[in-house]
Amino acid sequence: MTIAPQHRLTLAELRAEIEQFYAEHFHLLDSGAAAEWARTFTEDGVFVPPGGKAPVRGREALATGVAAGYQRLLAAGEVHRHWHGMVAVHPRADGTVQVRCYALILATPRGGPTRTHLSCFAEDVFVREEGRLLLRERRVSRDDSDD
Amino acid sequence: MTIAPQHRLTLAELRAEIEQFYAEHFHLLDSGAAAEWARTFTEDGVFVPPGGKAPVRGREALATGVAAGYQRLLAAGEVHRHWHGMVAVHPRADGTVQVRCYALILATPRGGPTRTHLSCFAEDVFVREEGRLLLRERRVSRDDSDD
Amino acid sequence: MTIAPQHRLTLAELRAEIEQFYAEHFHLLDSGAAAEWARTFTEDGVFVPPGGKAPVRGREALATGVAAGYQRLLAAGEVHRHWHGMVAVHPRADGTVQVRCYALILATPRGGPTRTHLSCFAEDVFVREEGRLLLRERRVSRDDSDD
Repeated sequence: MTIAPQHRLTLAELRAEIEQFYAEHFHLLDSGAAAEWARTFTEDGVFVPPGGKAPVRGREALATGVAAGYQRLLAAGEVHRHWHGMVAVHPRADGTVQVRCYALILATPRGGPTRTHLSCFAEDVFVREEGRLLLRERRVSRDDSDD
Repeated sequence: MTIAPQHRLTLAELRAEIEQFYAEHFHLLDSGAAAEWARTFTEDGVFVPPGGKAPVRGREALATGVAAGYQRLLAAGEVHRHWHGMVAVHPRADGTVQVRCYALILATPRGGPTRTHLSCFAEDVFVREEGRLLLRERRVSRDDSDD
Repeated sequence: MTIAPQHRLTLAELRAEIEQFYAEHFHLLDSGAAAEWARTFTEDGVFVPPGGKAPVRGREALATGVAAGYQRLLAAGEVHRHWHGMVAVHPRADGTVQVRCYALILATPRGGPTRTHLSCFAEDVFVREEGRLLLRERRVSRDDSDD
């Protein structure tokens, strides 16, 4: 019996998977589907916010924080849209995938106009579980602050 | 004689085709090439605008509307740029392709500055005709309104 | 002995390579890594700025200009982020690759808010040297001006 060699993803395949991940991940986030969004992280996934704030660890804490934030947006009558762009994808020897990219949050109140809420830099680390990429860690820094 | 099995597109191939489509489609739109832009729709393609406005159906009506809009921008001395982002691509069993994405329209008057004209959510349905993806339907909702 | 036919890149492979290039190229530019950024151009690469300004030719001149610009941003306490989007990739018969795309520059002062500094149209020409795509020419026009 031979073990089939693991298929090595080309850059095109890996980038496509990451870009598709971001699209679905942010559609969930921005529509308030907090629990489903949290499941795009690993069980112990961690979000390291900017400004030295405490990391948010685990799907439950991630979902709770995002659900609360979405309620605030609903109350304020505001829609947020997260865009990731200039996405640099780097597979690493340990099988994880590192992504470094720009992140933009657009905010639109009812009646407009749309404003740029934040411009950020994001560093994500993905791992593959049962064939599917999951986010193990996200670190974000804001362009408007050195913290 | 055998009939070659139809090549199944990978996610990478399909995403590349859609992203390239959007680039060329919006370059045409934003440069006022209305008739050529309309030919990226199917003959009976339909655009469902936000706010409950009447759908625009068929290449001729699509081209007419876009040509008129472009003349208004020329008269106002303003350049519009349509960006699609966070593009989630879903091939369906019937051979069509559904795309759900964010849409941003940037407006730049002569002398500047650039402003965000609209932030939207778009749902496109593509069909393949003679090997080429064409847009059969686009539905757009605006972030600044519930309509 | 036979010579292996040159692998023809698919659209997906070529687009992935270009998108990855832009991500790394602009991360370098926006973080002030001027010399490393200039090495993403060919040795005699040229940047043709908008407004009829003199082209900047060669890696040394490119790096010098970008390093000076970055120092001005540091002094002003401002972060710039370059985004390329709506990227249309066209391989040409001579082996070069032409890209036509939108370019957005976001500017964020310390304390915010982020503003759209410029919306532009860019035309790039890539050549492959020792297997790696390099930028031979970039032409940029600004949406806020006909010059």
